[in-house]
Amino acid sequence: MSTQARVLIDCQDAKGLVYKISKVFYDMHLNIDNNREFVDKEADKFFMRTVVDGEFEPQKLEHELRAILPKNADLKVVLPERKKIVLMVTKESHALGDILMRYVDGELNAEIEAVIGNYDTLEPLVRKFNIPFFHIPADNLGREEHEELIVEVLEKIDFDYIILAKYMRILTPNFVGRYKQRIINIHHSFLPAFIGANPYKQAYQRGVKIIGATAHFVTDDLDEGPIITQDVIPVNHRFNWQDMQRAGRNVEKIVLSRALDLVLHDRVFVHGNKTIVF
Amino acid sequence: MSTQARVLIDCQDAKGLVYKISKVFYDMHLNIDNNREFVDKEADKFFMRTVVDGEFEPQKLEHELRAILPKNADLKVVLPERKKIVLMVTKESHALGDILMRYVDGELNAEIEAVIGNYDTLEPLVRKFNIPFFHIPADNLGREEHEELIVEVLEKIDFDYIILAKYMRILTPNFVGRYKQRIINIHHSFLPAFIGANPYKQAYQRGVKIIGATAHFVTDDLDEGPIITQDVIPVNHRFNWQDMQRAGRNVEKIVLSRALDLVLHDRVFVHGNKTIVF
Amino acid sequence: MSTQARVLIDCQDAKGLVYKISKVFYDMHLNIDNNREFVDKEADKFFMRTVVDGEFEPQKLEHELRAILPKNADLKVVLPERKKIVLMVTKESHALGDILMRYVDGELNAEIEAVIGNYDTLEPLVRKFNIPFFHIPADNLGREEHEELIVEVLEKIDFDYIILAKYMRILTPNFVGRYKQRIINIHHSFLPAFIGANPYKQAYQRGVKIIGATAHFVTDDLDEGPIITQDVIPVNHRFNWQDMQRAGRNVEKIVLSRALDLVLHDRVFVHGNKTIVF
Amino acid sequence: MSTQARVLIDCQDAKGLVYKISKVFYDMHLNIDNNREFVDKEADKFFMRTVVDGEFEPQKLEHELRAILPKNADLKVVLPERKKIVLMVTKESHALGDILMRYVDGELNAEIEAVIGNYDTLEPLVRKFNIPFFHIPADNLGREEHEELIVEVLEKIDFDYIILAKYMRILTPNFVGRYKQRIINIHHSFLPAFIGANPYKQAYQRGVKIIGATAHFVTDDLDEGPIITQDVIPVNHRFNWQDMQRAGRNVEKIVLSRALDLVLHDRVFVHGNKTIVF
Repeated sequence: MSTQARVLIDCQDAKGLVYKISKVFYDMHLNIDNNREFVDKEADKFFMRTVVDGEFEPQKLEHELRAILPKNADLKVVLPERKKIVLMVTKESHALGDILMRYVDGELNAEIEAVIGNYDTLEPLVRKFNIPFFHIPADNLGREEHEELIVEVLEKIDFDYIILAKYMRILTPNFVGRYKQRIINIHHSFLPAFIGANPYKQAYQRGVKIIGATAHFVTDDLDEGPIITQDVIPVNHRFNWQDMQRAGRNVEKIVLSRALDLVLHDRVFVHGNKTIVF
Repeated sequence: MSTQARVLIDCQDAKGLVYKISKVFYDMHLNIDNNREFVDKEADKFFMRTVVDGEFEPQKLEHELRAILPKNADLKVVLPERKKIVLMVTKESHALGDILMRYVDGELNAEIEAVIGNYDTLEPLVRKFNIPFFHIPADNLGREEHEELIVEVLEKIDFDYIILAKYMRILTPNFVGRYKQRIINIHHSFLPAFIGANPYKQAYQRGVKIIGATAHFVTDDLDEGPIITQDVIPVNHRFNWQDMQRAGRNVEKIVLSRALDLVLHDRVFVHGNKTIVF
Repeated sequence: MSTQARVLIDCQDAKGLVYKISKVFYDMHLNIDNNREFVDKEADKFFMRTVVDGEFEPQKLEHELRAILPKNADLKVVLPERKKIVLMVTKESHALGDILMRYVDGELNAEIEAVIGNYDTLEPLVRKFNIPFFHIPADNLGREEHEELIVEVLEKIDFDYIILAKYMRILTPNFVGRYKQRIINIHHSFLPAFIGANPYKQAYQRGVKIIGATAHFVTDDLDEGPIITQDVIPVNHRFNWQDMQRAGRNVEKIVLSRALDLVLHDRVFVHGNKTIVF
Repeated sequence: MSTQARVLIDCQDAKGLVYKISKVFYDMHLNIDNNREFVDKEADKFFMRTVVDGEFEPQKLEHELRAILPKNADLKVVLPERKKIVLMVTKESHALGDILMRYVDGELNAEIEAVIGNYDTLEPLVRKFNIPFFHIPADNLGREEHEELIVEVLEKIDFDYIILAKYMRILTPNFVGRYKQRIINIHHSFLPAFIGANPYKQAYQRGVKIIGATAHFVTDDLDEGPIITQDVIPVNHRFNWQDMQRAGRNVEKIVLSRALDLVLHDRVFVHGNKTIVF
């Protein structure tokens, strides 16, 4: 018997959905603690995230809901347990560091199962927190070969999400496909501006007055995955590209941590190449 | 027979409210176009704004809903018609001007029935737009006497809201009580900082690095009414208080217009000295 | 005899420039009211904007300064007089309206000499303010032919800057070249994101969480001119592209007016495809 | 012989100051790498921060400058060496953690000489980074007695600034006076709003739509010291005060780190109860 669950529904829109769903909750004597809905009329899709309280069997709730939902509905009844994550990093520590600090002070709402680095630069930092660090160098390896070694490690770990905390290598469609909608990246620009390499250099050369960062799910299309959250900071002519990069790090780490917080509380629905964030 | 209505509910929280309300919609064959709810657990209060579509009689909908709602529920079934507003001004034109321009380009979603000024400075501007301007000077008049003249004008006008677009006189509790939850003010500071006169001077003297503006409902407690929306802009040591004031005007007008837009779409519930904004 | 001038210097960097320039001011008994400098080391360029006070002949000051500046220095001694501007518009009124309102309340710091529209939609609004409106339709005209008619009108007007206040036609290199560094545009996106047509539709389809606006000088490369200022606002999944456009208008008008204010106070230096903003 | 110095001047305004100062630089064959000035006309005060490059003796430069500056000028010729700081903490780790992480990745531009805590909660975290932690409990001690113990520790340490990274005890005027303009605090509100205890509770009760944080120098007047930098984030009716506090932590840590960065690069002048930030 549970006491709280997050009900996540993503289905074809239909008349009476709110009524039918809330009737199930009512008949099972559940309290609605929190409820958000959204209908994308263009796509004719219905999204709902409801936190329910009460004495109930999650499986029974799922069964009752499935009975009244349209076919092919994407339904999840999620218990509010801490998720498990794996971090992937290269050499920069700011995004990793921010996540570690939230982990330390109990704000992260997740277990960090492991950190994987293509360099060992960040190993000493990670070790301080008694988190396993796997150094998997890419030297002399093709992209696929390198990823095979990573997958080998990942296969031994139980996790919900992979967080690319400034992991500076491009992933193959094969790898991305294996962990669909489970890889989150922080991109060091205000996407879709400055796609590709060295966004801060690009931003400097273009003479922009604002720079930003974007947290998104990773899909095959590099830098084109569904955006979870974005933020910006002002810059000016006195910033060279390294200054922009330095300033950008604050935005990057805050944006990634905010995205993580949303995803770890099951607040994000992927909808094509967009997200619904409740 | 109507085709669209905004259902606004503000009542004691109770089990099954969403179910019972959505059942009414379902039984009357109404589509839920848009739905937002909020439960204030501390106060045990339930708030809901639903836009419904269909063929129905508003009175019947109201009757059916009232039958299932807790006693003393505050229920409104509002047709999405343009509201009517009266503006009150003194000498500064920026807030008034922004509203007039939105009126001109059809963005305002309201009829401006009249502008009342304690000075005639803005009369020529208002007249350009064929809007009645009432100049009601306060010279040699007590606050009550002056307000009596204003009320005399207001009594002849059919309106929903009074918008204080930089009206620089304090209103008496008597006036405020007469138009409860119907007067909206733009305060030239990031409330509750710099309550009282000359907020920009105060801000300058305090050496703040950010200034703001606050749109709020007017209550007896000056500058203490429920906040609808706020925004800020950065300033620095090169700003004297006049520069801050000049910079602040942009925020003031945008914040007031944003608040108006929310109120005119029935998106704002007053809840004690706070607001719920859907 | 003048009492105040803005000295604008843009030249090759050299040792002792600040000393030599401030010596000229000192020897002419001028007060430095305000002084900003910037050295772009990569480009080896020096920029300075100084406001000086005193009794002096502007030509003499210019002569003395030129004597100590590097050859080919770009030097201007500008008296703080109101600039003259021409606005170009199409159908949307928000950017035009914001400028008109600043004009009315004395905040604009410029004379509006004329408004040119390829449609007559905004003529009644402009006429209210006793500003000449020239309707120059583009129907059945090639781009060059249409611009010839515009140039014909412009040639009869004495003006400093052309402001494209949501003018929705692309200008030819010929037109742009004729008014080099004198045309300012508001682009309805956070450049360089969403270059080209319908940026709000693009933004909606990409699922961004922030939209923005960019004021820039117009150059041959469409949407690639030197950026003067940018700003953004948050959006979310509940915004369709029209909502984004509506929200974007607030940013557009504020960003354009802020850029105008900077340019009209001679605070902006163009430096390649970038700007220095003092 | 040095190669770079920051020249900091804070004095009575006088004619020809820029000329006389730049003449000293010129005569000593120094390059001006970067230069910012500000004149507060109301207070008749001149502020200047210049970074100079070249071969020179700092003492000689100081001597030459003093010869041409007004009496009582506050002049410093600072070599760009890393400053030394002491952190004071209580139980919350987010501000401390952000500083530690910047320390780890070489972004801090300072040596952390010690951390002092009135609780030992954060000792394990600090120890991970091989930084001395002094636990000085306040139990059963008067404010003065407790501070005596702290001063005892501080007296043995060579440091430039004390950073209150969420140190939750009020300091006595005696302590503050001992380290004048050397104590920096992060206040968990957008000062001057919500002075005093529990600002997040106050903010929640007031129903604000934005919360903020303020980094400032500590003076006798609690929460009234010169503001270095401030920032804000939006909140809404769904935030209870704990949510506001959680959201506020991101702003607090970023604002404190930004203030630190400015102070550690000698970019902040204190001017009465305000700051000049170059």
